[in-house]
Amino acid sequence: MDEFSLINHFFKSIPIKRKDVLLGIGDDAASVHVPTGMELIISTDTLVSGVHFLPEWNAFDIAQKSLLVNISDMAAMAAIPCWVTLALTLPNLDEQWLDSFSKGFNEVLNQYNIDLIGGDTTHGPLSITVTILGLAPKGQKIQRRGAKPGDIIMVTGDLGAPALAVKFLEKKDIDSSHRSVLMDKLLHPKPRTEFCSLLRTYATSAIDISDGLSADLSHICEASHVGALLEEEKILIHPLVTHYLQKDAVDLALSGGDDYEICYTIPKKHLDDFLKELKIQNLESYPIGVIQEDTGIRLKKADGSSVEYKPKGYVHF
Amino acid sequence: MDEFSLINHFFKSIPIKRKDVLLGIGDDAASVHVPTGMELIISTDTLVSGVHFLPEWNAFDIAQKSLLVNISDMAAMAAIPCWVTLALTLPNLDEQWLDSFSKGFNEVLNQYNIDLIGGDTTHGPLSITVTILGLAPKGQKIQRRGAKPGDIIMVTGDLGAPALAVKFLEKKDIDSSHRSVLMDKLLHPKPRTEFCSLLRTYATSAIDISDGLSADLSHICEASHVGALLEEEKILIHPLVTHYLQKDAVDLALSGGDDYEICYTIPKKHLDDFLKELKIQNLESYPIGVIQEDTGIRLKKADGSSVEYKPKGYVHF
Repeated sequence: MDEFSLINHFFKSIPIKRKDVLLGIGDDAASVHVPTGMELIISTDTLVSGVHFLPEWNAFDIAQKSLLVNISDMAAMAAIPCWVTLALTLPNLDEQWLDSFSKGFNEVLNQYNIDLIGGDTTHGPLSITVTILGLAPKGQKIQRRGAKPGDIIMVTGDLGAPALAVKFLEKKDIDSSHRSVLMDKLLHPKPRTEFCSLLRTYATSAIDISDGLSADLSHICEASHVGALLEEEKILIHPLVTHYLQKDAVDLALSGGDDYEICYTIPKKHLDDFLKELKIQNLESYPIGVIQEDTGIRLKKADGSSVEYKPKGYVHF
Repeated sequence: MDEFSLINHFFKSIPIKRKDVLLGIGDDAASVHVPTGMELIISTDTLVSGVHFLPEWNAFDIAQKSLLVNISDMAAMAAIPCWVTLALTLPNLDEQWLDSFSKGFNEVLNQYNIDLIGGDTTHGPLSITVTILGLAPKGQKIQRRGAKPGDIIMVTGDLGAPALAVKFLEKKDIDSSHRSVLMDKLLHPKPRTEFCSLLRTYATSAIDISDGLSADLSHICEASHVGALLEEEKILIHPLVTHYLQKDAVDLALSGGDDYEICYTIPKKHLDDFLKELKIQNLESYPIGVIQEDTGIRLKKADGSSVEYKPKGYVHF
């Protein structure tokens, strides 16, 4: 099967669901309709074999993760994901791998009502670059900049499990049900798209936690020219992280990465309304600290003392 | 220098020129304004080290080519390129390489009034994925489908030089001025954006020649459910290709690839008007054959005989 047959077989066969797609896969470029009153939101993420995933993992899971991390970027901007392109670099033409990859990819596309509109298949070391395009009403996207002193820092879920999964990849003596819970957290992040409209109404800033809470929160702080005081006891840590790491659990929750929860800020005066809305929408989020004028991140311990916390996160080089 | 400093230093420092960019590099996603009445046109191309370029080539040239081939996709759709994202996978953090890469990239961005709005820098085997976004007035993009029997097949320039450059990479006994002409054709394709408005007005189909004239023309034929009759003598071959390959020159021109000229079709009844317009705009194009009802590509020889030509082009696997 040559390159063109391959593309035809696995990716052109994925049906277009959206009416706003004017031209899908199979030409020099795709075309979509962007409605008046909407901003186009764009993000690109690459997953490299051996760096972001292991080549022996299921192609189905690799495909899902490559798409889910991009959807998470849209969620963090309070944008609705609509269309993606897929640049797939493959060491060889393995039909079974491609079948599994395209099935995994398509499942997530359907789940989020996203269409695959184009891409490129090339020969080389395994890597996947997804570019995602989404929409947000004009002026209503949420950025990293915008956090104000006094704003409450919120996180959409528990932290640390994906980082523990990575830490335990080579460890043999893990309970197999624990391993499968951890691997599921690593392989199938849950982009918090359900927070989209609430973030638009209430949040002053937002970011998705890909590099670790402390690193990503520091991006909010730098972009907003503020600092943050985190309360150690309020950071929601995945129970298996606490189980295995005890005292060190909080450090992994702060520095681990790959969580794909959203960290965002809410003005204190809107907090009560916001928490009521959360409840109505059956959504959960946890206040973990407060934005401060002084730059840097401080960590308040259980005993009331507070220390400077140097952001640690995933560094690629 | 860690990943964030790197991105800041080389890519965030590239200034935004366009007023329609609402948010550039440095957040979870970028944002742009798409004017009412315009379609958004999207394309993605990956260049892999050792496959599409050699790692020892100048980073400046690699950067330019990675962007130029994407601009060419916009030109073939009769769309105006506006914004790009850059997914750069690097084996190590070589500041000199990055400096040269970002300079090369930026030069082409400026030349075509395109803004770099986002991307991802990851660690892994060298490869570059550019996603380009452009605009075309609603319903006026040109696709592969649309060619009709009787339409004249046109090409915007001479063919074969880039493929000869690849063929001669390892050959030692080439005149050095010849080598530099050929390498320039390989490294710096000239996307035919200047044909944009003429294609919109006159063309029934178009494609850029990346896989070789015969392969790319066959894409037009398949999408349009037609065939093509090419006149061997009319195919414009780069003089160095004729010089070195003599009789075999036409085969390289038909199958070589990497030319990034546009192959397009014009209805016969509009040909005279079109040629006049070309002249007024000081543009050149060459009629090389005619679209036929019978599928497949036929090649008419100088002696008047014609043979079936099996499309040959670059196959990745």
